[in-house]
Amino acid sequence: MEKAVGDLIAGITVGLTVIPQSLAYSNIAGLPPQHGLYGSFLGCFVYIVLGGCRAVPAGPTAIASLLTWQVAGGVVEKAVLLSFLAGIVKLLMGVLGLGFLVNFVSGPVSSGFTSAVALMIATSQVKDLFAITVTGDTFLQQWISIFRNLHSAALWDPVLGFVCIALLLLMRKIGMTKLGAKSESGPNTRQKVITKCMWLLGTCRNAIVVVATGVLGYWLVATYGHSPVRLMGVIPSGVPVPQLPPFSYVRADNTTADFVDMVSELGSGLLVIPLIVLLEDIAICKAFSDGRTIDATQEMIALGVAGIANSFMQAYPGGGSLARSVVCNGSGVKTTFNGLYTGLMVILALQFFTQYFEFIPKAALAAVIVSAILFMVEYNVIKPMWRAKKLDLIPGVGTFVLCLTLPIELGILTGVIVNIIFILYHAARPKFSVEMLKTEAGVEYLMITPDRCLMFPSVDYVRRLVIKFAASGSVPVVLECTHIYSADYTAAKSIEQLTADFHARRQPLYFYNVKPSVCSIFEAVAKPEHFVVFYEDEELDRLLAADDRLAPVKQPPPPHHA
Amino acid sequence: MEKAVGDLIAGITVGLTVIPQSLAYSNIAGLPPQHGLYGSFLGCFVYIVLGGCRAVPAGPTAIASLLTWQVAGGVVEKAVLLSFLAGIVKLLMGVLGLGFLVNFVSGPVSSGFTSAVALMIATSQVKDLFAITVTGDTFLQQWISIFRNLHSAALWDPVLGFVCIALLLLMRKIGMTKLGAKSESGPNTRQKVITKCMWLLGTCRNAIVVVATGVLGYWLVATYGHSPVRLMGVIPSGVPVPQLPPFSYVRADNTTADFVDMVSELGSGLLVIPLIVLLEDIAICKAFSDGRTIDATQEMIALGVAGIANSFMQAYPGGGSLARSVVCNGSGVKTTFNGLYTGLMVILALQFFTQYFEFIPKAALAAVIVSAILFMVEYNVIKPMWRAKKLDLIPGVGTFVLCLTLPIELGILTGVIVNIIFILYHAARPKFSVEMLKTEAGVEYLMITPDRCLMFPSVDYVRRLVIKFAASGSVPVVLECTHIYSADYTAAKSIEQLTADFHARRQPLYFYNVKPSVCSIFEAVAKPEHFVVFYEDEELDRLLAADDRLAPVKQPPPPHHA
Repeated sequence: MEKAVGDLIAGITVGLTVIPQSLAYSNIAGLPPQHGLYGSFLGCFVYIVLGGCRAVPAGPTAIASLLTWQVAGGVVEKAVLLSFLAGIVKLLMGVLGLGFLVNFVSGPVSSGFTSAVALMIATSQVKDLFAITVTGDTFLQQWISIFRNLHSAALWDPVLGFVCIALLLLMRKIGMTKLGAKSESGPNTRQKVITKCMWLLGTCRNAIVVVATGVLGYWLVATYGHSPVRLMGVIPSGVPVPQLPPFSYVRADNTTADFVDMVSELGSGLLVIPLIVLLEDIAICKAFSDGRTIDATQEMIALGVAGIANSFMQAYPGGGSLARSVVCNGSGVKTTFNGLYTGLMVILALQFFTQYFEFIPKAALAAVIVSAILFMVEYNVIKPMWRAKKLDLIPGVGTFVLCLTLPIELGILTGVIVNIIFILYHAARPKFSVEMLKTEAGVEYLMITPDRCLMFPSVDYVRRLVIKFAASGSVPVVLECTHIYSADYTAAKSIEQLTADFHARRQPLYFYNVKPSVCSIFEAVAKPEHFVVFYEDEELDRLLAADDRLAPVKQPPPPHHA
Repeated sequence: MEKAVGDLIAGITVGLTVIPQSLAYSNIAGLPPQHGLYGSFLGCFVYIVLGGCRAVPAGPTAIASLLTWQVAGGVVEKAVLLSFLAGIVKLLMGVLGLGFLVNFVSGPVSSGFTSAVALMIATSQVKDLFAITVTGDTFLQQWISIFRNLHSAALWDPVLGFVCIALLLLMRKIGMTKLGAKSESGPNTRQKVITKCMWLLGTCRNAIVVVATGVLGYWLVATYGHSPVRLMGVIPSGVPVPQLPPFSYVRADNTTADFVDMVSELGSGLLVIPLIVLLEDIAICKAFSDGRTIDATQEMIALGVAGIANSFMQAYPGGGSLARSVVCNGSGVKTTFNGLYTGLMVILALQFFTQYFEFIPKAALAAVIVSAILFMVEYNVIKPMWRAKKLDLIPGVGTFVLCLTLPIELGILTGVIVNIIFILYHAARPKFSVEMLKTEAGVEYLMITPDRCLMFPSVDYVRRLVIKFAASGSVPVVLECTHIYSADYTAAKSIEQLTADFHARRQPLYFYNVKPSVCSIFEAVAKPEHFVVFYEDEELDRLLAADDRLAPVKQPPPPHHA
């Protein structure tokens, strides 16, 4: 019972968030506003059954909307087909267990990408905020266009927009305030109630602003016959009739694009959107997991089926949204069942309220997006990244800059590749510690300890360094293999060459503490008489004494002629 | 003095090998035979000064010839420009220190590539061996064409060819025989002299066969007016006048290709040829290094300058050849100075002997190539690879099959990428050992030891597994970090989440033996009260006693009411 109430409250609160969000995000995707709402109910119902994380209300997201705009270019048919095909790709990735691919997007790359997307989304809203025309595809082009056209800005659109932004930020601040939290006895009942009300104000701030400005727009039109600020315009009413996603469309120049044309126009978006959506979803799941583990496969399947289902409702790609999850979690959600109430609210809105949506000012929706999206710019990760590992700033800042200058999917791909090169470099360049030690019998030897496994990119480097270290003297050399937890055929070949080289120059080389799995790999290639392993310190003296390569040690003292 | 004699003998022996090889390899590259000779002297002189390995006589090689044929398609101008541009690429790679790139070609990939190239080169010689026409670009197409056209084979060409192959293999065998090596007293003087003569016979077998069949061809033409076997035909005499490499050429359809056209036609060959040539060269250097280290940068610069110089003599790309290095090393080479004598011999041959080369039968040259190239098929690496690491057969066999079916540079590239995926998977999936231990005070705890470093592809996996292991009980958990020699920001974020999760569920989590460099990374992100590190076993009991999360341990025994 307690669970059902928690889910009911969470579901309704999320519903109040998702409706204005859906209208606004459709604008980011360059689509008519109803398509955002179309993607906010059926997917929710699917996620109830298949989803693994209670705090993820599936629906349109800012990032997926921006990517949809970049890939589908504002063509409804392409956006809907994209939802269908991206859903199939997600489903396939889930079934084939390819969810691990998101692991190759590191924290810095992910932060750089999210921050760049946030700036691009904010930029995309400037046109509605100032009621100007903005052209250009990249961040830079758009800002040049903005500064060129700013002189033609309207008066009342920016006024309304910035007032809304100020109100939204204020309500956000109020919503986060906790009365009496600092007093020693904790908050009293009155403080608790006020805190709860303030939290509700903060949570419903988007709905409040949208409803209030909508009423304002309605009053302006009713009183003066027209509005000084630009309004949303007519939105078709009613829940869409389920239908197959479109497999062809008529282009602007009246030619028809068939299925193959559409797929080739969507191109790499068919792979990038599923991966990015999953990345966002898993990041959210992790943030609200309370230490439970997340099943990436289950999430991919759930989001895949939700995307396919949504495409039958003429929706464009979506997924889990962090903003809604924060609301959902804060409303005391207990199970994924909360999605039912959210979906029902969206259906009600579509059925009965769309006629009122046309009076919402565009600048107010832009304000809703801008005031939320700016908190997605993760400037606060730079400091810990700098303190933890400065090198990680390269993929982070690099991805950020590339996403703003290149097409966004190319930007994140380049960031991932740069970061993979770090891993490969790391595999290719192990570190060594070198010590000159003495056995119990007093024989000096050189102990060389590599710090990681031997795989093909590093073997030559290791061999070269060992030879260099050993060349300084002619003492016996011991290669300490404790940290070599894995090896391959190329490593074994190199070890064989190394042992043969040492044998040829009559310098003893022993291997200490080789793991059995690694030992069997080396033994399969190296000559047994060259490849000598020992596991106990005491064995070394015995080995050295028996080694005929080490003449000075073996020579008996000259006999005394007494 | 001893050095000079060694170099003189080695230089002349290599000269006797390189002249027939040059004529034959030009045929693999689809170019007139003199272009092989043009590439066999100036590069040698350059390598004397800049080269780092005494046993590498720079000149045409089988692999570079096959790649030249695939990239330049038998157009002389393109092949010469390729030598020039590939030389510049090698030089740049050397200057920029990109020699380490060859480390990413593993042993299995290299073996698969070499074996595939050997089979393709042997296939390319079938047309001369049987005097038939062969069409097709890939291995399969060529063999289909061979079986279709075999009925039109000549009689005497294959007879001569196979007799030559039999003789060459016999002489090779004789050359490897060592008389008296098995007798206890070692070989006597007579045996030593005979062994040396037999070695000389084996080493000069190519020159012997080419000269003998050339005399035969001359006699046939002189006696009967024509030859029953196809001969080489006229070869222009004299050392070429140095000239700039061609920056444009006239295509078969009489259109002119300018420099940009030529570069785009050469395409990826401009990167693949330098890398493959360097790969072969470094493999040779390693084989004859006697344990000295090889400077890949120096080799790249030497081969780059040699390639540029050669292009002024109208030569096509070349490098170090294993066959010649074996001869060179066996002839008692002492310094790179031997290249002087080799180069002088080639100049003498160009100046005075080309008129005799026209009588050499094509089938004899094909026999020279086939009888050498078949030993390049590395079927003998399969067994040790199987015993050492069966997984390494995938990139090995995969590269072999792909090189035979795809364009050869795509084949090796795919092999390298597959092998890199192994490395990435390896980085993403560390192994764990989990033990239930007891402190001295008798408190049970779970010790989890990951076996390698924490980098972004693996951190999620590690976090998930640690949570899974720890979820089985509520005992304290110790993460043993001895083998974690490196970490990044993403790992630190994950560790922070992990510590916060454990804190939230009131299960103690400690970190044991964290390296200082790793510790500072974790401390930059994790909360200090959650991230507890200890280095001595005894500290654990003190930590556990002080930990208020572990209520049962901290509770004092109930006071006795006596």
